[in-house]
Amino acid sequence: MTDTPAFDIGSLHTAYAGGWPASNMIETLFERIAAIADPGIFLHLADRQDLLEQVAGLGSFDPTAKPLWGIPFAVKDNIDVAGMPTTAACPDYAYLPDRDATVVRLLKDAGAIVIGKTNLDQFATGLVGMRSPYPIPRNAIDPSLVPGGSSSGSAVATAHGIVSFALGTDTAGSGRIPAGLNNIVGLKPSVGALSTTGVIPACRTLDCVSIFALTAADAWSVFSVAARHDPSDAYSKSVPATGHGPLPPVLKIGVPARHDRHFFGDDAMETAYAAALDRLVELGHTLVDVPFDDFYATANLLYEGAWVAERYAAVKDFFNASEASFHPVTRKIYGAAKTLTAADAFNGLYALQALKQKVAPLIASVDLFCVPTAPRHYTTAELAAEPIRENSRLGTYTNFVNLLDMCGIAVPTGTRSDGLPASVTLLAASGKDGMTAALAARIHQASGLTLGATGWPQPPARPTADISAPGIDLVVVG
Amino acid sequence: MTDTPAFDIGSLHTAYAGGWPASNMIETLFERIAAIADPGIFLHLADRQDLLEQVAGLGSFDPTAKPLWGIPFAVKDNIDVAGMPTTAACPDYAYLPDRDATVVRLLKDAGAIVIGKTNLDQFATGLVGMRSPYPIPRNAIDPSLVPGGSSSGSAVATAHGIVSFALGTDTAGSGRIPAGLNNIVGLKPSVGALSTTGVIPACRTLDCVSIFALTAADAWSVFSVAARHDPSDAYSKSVPATGHGPLPPVLKIGVPARHDRHFFGDDAMETAYAAALDRLVELGHTLVDVPFDDFYATANLLYEGAWVAERYAAVKDFFNASEASFHPVTRKIYGAAKTLTAADAFNGLYALQALKQKVAPLIASVDLFCVPTAPRHYTTAELAAEPIRENSRLGTYTNFVNLLDMCGIAVPTGTRSDGLPASVTLLAASGKDGMTAALAARIHQASGLTLGATGWPQPPARPTADISAPGIDLVVVG
Repeated sequence: MTDTPAFDIGSLHTAYAGGWPASNMIETLFERIAAIADPGIFLHLADRQDLLEQVAGLGSFDPTAKPLWGIPFAVKDNIDVAGMPTTAACPDYAYLPDRDATVVRLLKDAGAIVIGKTNLDQFATGLVGMRSPYPIPRNAIDPSLVPGGSSSGSAVATAHGIVSFALGTDTAGSGRIPAGLNNIVGLKPSVGALSTTGVIPACRTLDCVSIFALTAADAWSVFSVAARHDPSDAYSKSVPATGHGPLPPVLKIGVPARHDRHFFGDDAMETAYAAALDRLVELGHTLVDVPFDDFYATANLLYEGAWVAERYAAVKDFFNASEASFHPVTRKIYGAAKTLTAADAFNGLYALQALKQKVAPLIASVDLFCVPTAPRHYTTAELAAEPIRENSRLGTYTNFVNLLDMCGIAVPTGTRSDGLPASVTLLAASGKDGMTAALAARIHQASGLTLGATGWPQPPARPTADISAPGIDLVVVG
Repeated sequence: MTDTPAFDIGSLHTAYAGGWPASNMIETLFERIAAIADPGIFLHLADRQDLLEQVAGLGSFDPTAKPLWGIPFAVKDNIDVAGMPTTAACPDYAYLPDRDATVVRLLKDAGAIVIGKTNLDQFATGLVGMRSPYPIPRNAIDPSLVPGGSSSGSAVATAHGIVSFALGTDTAGSGRIPAGLNNIVGLKPSVGALSTTGVIPACRTLDCVSIFALTAADAWSVFSVAARHDPSDAYSKSVPATGHGPLPPVLKIGVPARHDRHFFGDDAMETAYAAALDRLVELGHTLVDVPFDDFYATANLLYEGAWVAERYAAVKDFFNASEASFHPVTRKIYGAAKTLTAADAFNGLYALQALKQKVAPLIASVDLFCVPTAPRHYTTAELAAEPIRENSRLGTYTNFVNLLDMCGIAVPTGTRSDGLPASVTLLAASGKDGMTAALAARIHQASGLTLGATGWPQPPARPTADISAPGIDLVVVG
């Protein structure tokens, strides 16, 4: 028998290979849930006996046939898992799906085990994790802080090592902000890379399923399994999931020009970001100051007009019938969209198109960008006092990303002088998921940080081939 | 001195090279306008003296420096020409622009001469050419027939050889239908290939500037000059304008499956289409029956909901202030869009996205498609009796094209037993403008037809290099 392993994928697989039974993983997991005693994380937990039967049904350990063999994961409660209620954190909206969302099915097929459904900002609208009628998940590092959202429960469950990874969704930053605030990795794939079939829409034109994990290599392993073109999702796209080839020794990394960096008074975050950039230079890369005003102008579109109307459109009949079922903040946001016209929607699309054309040369001018994940930490008290303004500030470096069809990955970079986690997000053009994940792995390794809130050391670096597989050369004859 | 030449570009340039003065072109053109005596074609004509000064200002004949040296063209009156009123066929909307639309400027810079502004279906909404408060342009082949629209005046001016080419716009088929009904070529570029800066929008997300010409080679010459990326147009795209390389000897050409071919009782059109397909087989190409139901489902979106709202959005303030200024049919269509919500707009976008995903494999399965340009001819009396239904039927093979981001070119194929013109449209994925133009040139040459309504023989085939220049190999590393 082995000691209880850390729950990152490599450590669990090493333990399984050494004879540690997967049933022990289930028992450990329930012990951990009990020890953490946060009633805000899960909105539904799988039955222990069911889980033990599932791991028994996996057969003998075979990570080649099933790359996620015996790996426990949690699913944000706006993503369907057959036989578990989907609530979107709105109890009156709840339904019991009889089919898995496409991504859940792919992960199960690869041997992963769904542990439960996690709390969220209602209908995935918010970056704070506090817009839920259920108990608010506690930030895994410091319970006085907001956990971040909307994928709050998934991030906190991962940070505590209850699960190896968790699925979130990300429209405005919901897969990155809570990763940054809980010292874990948050991979926000290129728009369309992961199917949204079986996911309750926020903005269908922008929604991404995202992955929280303890390491970048783990996030990439999950991405490699889940990124499949899905004909049942009109916005599904084929995105390379085989890796990007070796990282160039010198990457050209865009950073917001000095006057475009905003930390809203959090000096420790500013210092941490500067240190993270220094680390990139130490790793041999080149930083380029880029004006960010057009990125911020794009971000502003997300909560003005067209895309708020898109959120409303997704639940229109339910909202019109049951407005009182909504969280007060969510209700206020959605209600403002009711009177928007089709002309307003098109005017929003035109404004976005104009900005896309303006920033395209900036995006093309660098290999990737490195931005702070969140501009600052907030206490739950601060958020309660200013629920909309501070939510909006949290999205400074995230809101524009899906509108511009970029991919991103949030990665821990260090511990601030006050003990709170620091994080950057690497952003790049659609399809560069592999490159950003590979650099995130380097940054995380260089940080020497422990994983989430667990105290577990980082596992040995896996062969970079896991992320950095040979690229595919496409020859297009114009 | 040379005899009065035909006005196709090659014949005019040959005449200029032989010493025929460009001032004679201006005189000839005014004589021709007088002889044709159709008050519906032009809404504004340039001043003769001004035109004579313009051609004098071109300097000596130099088709290398100015590939359109001394070539007369007309401009649909929803496209700005500095110093000429823009009306969109709505007199109360008229304004006097002080700048040329980008495409007009590029063509002028290449030596082309603007003769005047042409009539259209008001605000480019319609495929008939009869929705104008001005006299209706007469079909150049048979005045009892509708001229087609919305670019009616531009097509008729070209068919009579008053100009060498004319600019139209095409959202639903306005650059193809009138070409088909007037025995000329209508090149509808890939969406974004020609700038729409200085063009009154119909549906900004779909609008194309289009080119009417007497031959496919002429249309291509104009395209080569006009297709430039324009940073001032958010929807501008870089599209290859240098040709597509030699045409493969065997092209795989998709055609609507038999039960998806609709001619609405016009047997002569059905026969003509079959003959055109036989000609393609004789030329060595392979025909593939393709189910067209999803293309038709896409077409239906264009006049249901979202995109009608987009037309309304383009002139919202004017419509709300001056509804009575609109043509009765146009007013009815636009008025229906006033109550559409942002949710309706997004639902339309989702429906389109789902259809795009369904037809993508069909589009990828062939080199190009060959469809009838219009399903039938209509008399003006028939259209007056059923102004909306018959307009909609005219768009059977055109309405889906811009929604699916395809390019197209309408080309004459023969004369029907009743003496009326027959035409097919070649359609392909965005960026294949060169390939479709090259095949259109072959089809037109093989038809042996005279040009438009002029009786002029086709000029000698120009070196195919004009259209078939070497392609550009793009290497994309995934």
